Amino acid sequence: MRDFSADHRWLSINTATLRGAGTLDRIIECCVRHGIRAISPWRDQVHAIGLERTAELVREHTLELSGYCRGGMYPAIDAAGRRRAIDDNRRAIDEARALDAACLVLVVGSLPGALEGRPQSKDLFAARSDVHDGIAATLEHARAADMPLAIEPLHPMYAADRACVNTLEQALDLCDAIDPATGEAPGGGTRTRAALGVAVDVYHVWWDPKLEAQIARAGRERLLAFHVCDWLVPTRDLLNDRGMMGDGVIDIPRIRGWVEAAGFDGYSEVEIFSSENWWKRPEDDVLATCIERHRSCV
Amino acid sequence: MRDFSADHRWLSINTATLRGAGTLDRIIECCVRHGIRAISPWRDQVHAIGLERTAELVREHTLELSGYCRGGMYPAIDAAGRRRAIDDNRRAIDEARALDAACLVLVVGSLPGALEGRPQSKDLFAARSDVHDGIAATLEHARAADMPLAIEPLHPMYAADRACVNTLEQALDLCDAIDPATGEAPGGGTRTRAALGVAVDVYHVWWDPKLEAQIARAGRERLLAFHVCDWLVPTRDLLNDRGMMGDGVIDIPRIRGWVEAAGFDGYSEVEIFSSENWWKRPEDDVLATCIERHRSCV
Repeated sequence: MRDFSADHRWLSINTATLRGAGTLDRIIECCVRHGIRAISPWRDQVHAIGLERTAELVREHTLELSGYCRGGMYPAIDAAGRRRAIDDNRRAIDEARALDAACLVLVVGSLPGALEGRPQSKDLFAARSDVHDGIAATLEHARAADMPLAIEPLHPMYAADRACVNTLEQALDLCDAIDPATGEAPGGGTRTRAALGVAVDVYHVWWDPKLEAQIARAGRERLLAFHVCDWLVPTRDLLNDRGMMGDGVIDIPRIRGWVEAAGFDGYSEVEIFSSENWWKRPEDDVLATCIERHRSCV
Repeated sequence: MRDFSADHRWLSINTATLRGAGTLDRIIECCVRHGIRAISPWRDQVHAIGLERTAELVREHTLELSGYCRGGMYPAIDAAGRRRAIDDNRRAIDEARALDAACLVLVVGSLPGALEGRPQSKDLFAARSDVHDGIAATLEHARAADMPLAIEPLHPMYAADRACVNTLEQALDLCDAIDPATGEAPGGGTRTRAALGVAVDVYHVWWDPKLEAQIARAGRERLLAFHVCDWLVPTRDLLNDRGMMGDGVIDIPRIRGWVEAAGFDGYSEVEIFSSENWWKRPEDDVLATCIERHRSCV
C-alpha cells in the first residue's frame, strides 16, 4: 500500500468540494497554489468558463484529470428522452477526451422525473433496462475516443432519484454484460484499463458486506477511480452532508488497501458535498484540510 | 396473491405509526375501533403501561401480534456491554412470549456509541462479529420459548448507527450460519417457521437488485414478517420521513407478490416513522388512511 503520509502527490480534488469558491478558473488557481496535481471537474463548472478555457488552464498548469463528472442519467419516460441522454453522453465523452480525463464518471440515473421531485414511474426494472441500453449505446463512442466509462454505484439512498445501480456487484455485473472482453488491449498486449469499469466512492459503498470481494473481482482493469470523503454520525441531509476524511466512521485506509491490492495505483479523489460546513469555509482552509487528512486519514 | 382490496383483515399496525396518539392502551383502543386485528408494539410503549396490562388488552380484544419490536443492538465496546445486550434480548424474548407475538424483530445494532452520536469504533467487522455471536447466544433461549427471531436488514443509510446487516442476502447468510437446520419441526414433521428468519420491510430493501432472488431463497420458513410504508421523493430526513403507502416510489404490490410466491401468508404490517406529517395527524385519520391504502396500494 502506498505511503501517503509524506506528501500529497496522489491527492486529486473533485471540484465539487470547492463549490463555495466560485468559478472553475478560481478553483484551479487555488488547487495549483496548494501543489495539487490532479482535479476532477464537473461539466456545469467547465461549461461556465468554456471547454477551451478549461483545457488551456489544465495544460498551462500540467494538471491531470482523475475523472470528468459526469455522464449517465440514461432513464427517460420515452424514446426521445432516452435518445437525448445518449447524445448528451457522447458530448460528455468528447469533452472528457478534450481534457484528457482518466475516465468519464457515470451517475446512471433512475426513475424519470424523480430528480426533479416528480417521479413519473415506480419501475426500477425499466430504469435498469434503460441504463443497460444507454451504456451499451454509448460504449462504441467511448472506445473510439479511448475514454473509459466508470459506472459509479451510488448509495442505496439515491436509488429513486440519482442511480439505480447501488452496489459494486451490480455495477460489475453490468460491466461484464456490456463489455465482457477484458485482458487484451485493442492493439494487442494486456490492457490496463477496461473500456467500461467502475468508480469506487467510499461514501457510497463502505457499508457493503461484499465490498472487499467485489473490489478484488473488479481488478485493476475495471477500477478506474477511487473517491474519498467520510460518513458523518449523525448525517443530517441525504445529499449535502458528507464529511471530511477522518471526521466520520468510514475505515478509509482499509478500503484503500483493498483497492490497491487489486492493482489500483491512481489518485485518491476528494469529493465532499457539504452545504452547511465545507462549502462555507475559505477555499484555502478546505484544501489545507484535504491535504492534511489525505496524509493522515486516507 | 391475496386480494386485499375488499377488506383489511391482513393489515397489522406497528404501533410506532401512531406515536403521536399517546400511550399504548389508547393506541390499542384506536386500532380496535377501526377493526384492526393485529398490531406490533414497541417495548418502550409496552413498558410504559406494563407487560401485564398489555397482555390483558391483547387478550380482551383478541388481537394478534405480527411481531414485537425490538431486540438486537448486540455490538458493544466491551464484554460487559455484550453480555448486557444478550441479557436484554432474553428479556425481550420472554416479553414477546408473554404477548404471543409471531416473532421478535431484531434491529441488530452497529458501531458502539454511534446511535448516541459518539461512535467509539469504525470497525464494521467487529460489529458484525458481535451480531453473529449475540444472535447465536440468544437463539437457544428463543427456541426454548418457541419465539422466532426475525433479523431485519436495515437500509444501508443506517449502517453506522442502527444495523450492520443491510441486505436480505446478508441477513440470510447469517441465518444459514447460525441456524442451518431447516425443514424439520422440533416435534417432527415439517416446520413452517424457522427459529431464525428475517423481517422484510420494503423501506429497507426496495432498492436491492437481488431482492426477488433473496426473497425466494428465504422461503416460507425464514419469512417471518413483512413491513410496508413508502419511500418519499425527496426524503428530507434519514429516520423520520417515511411515507404512507402510495405516496412514494416503492412498487409494493410487486414485492408483496414475491413474498407471497415464497409462501408468506401473514400480515402486512404498516410501520411509518413520520415526525413532520403522520405523527402530527389525528390517529383516526392515520388509521383510516392506512386501511384505504392497504386496500389500494399494498
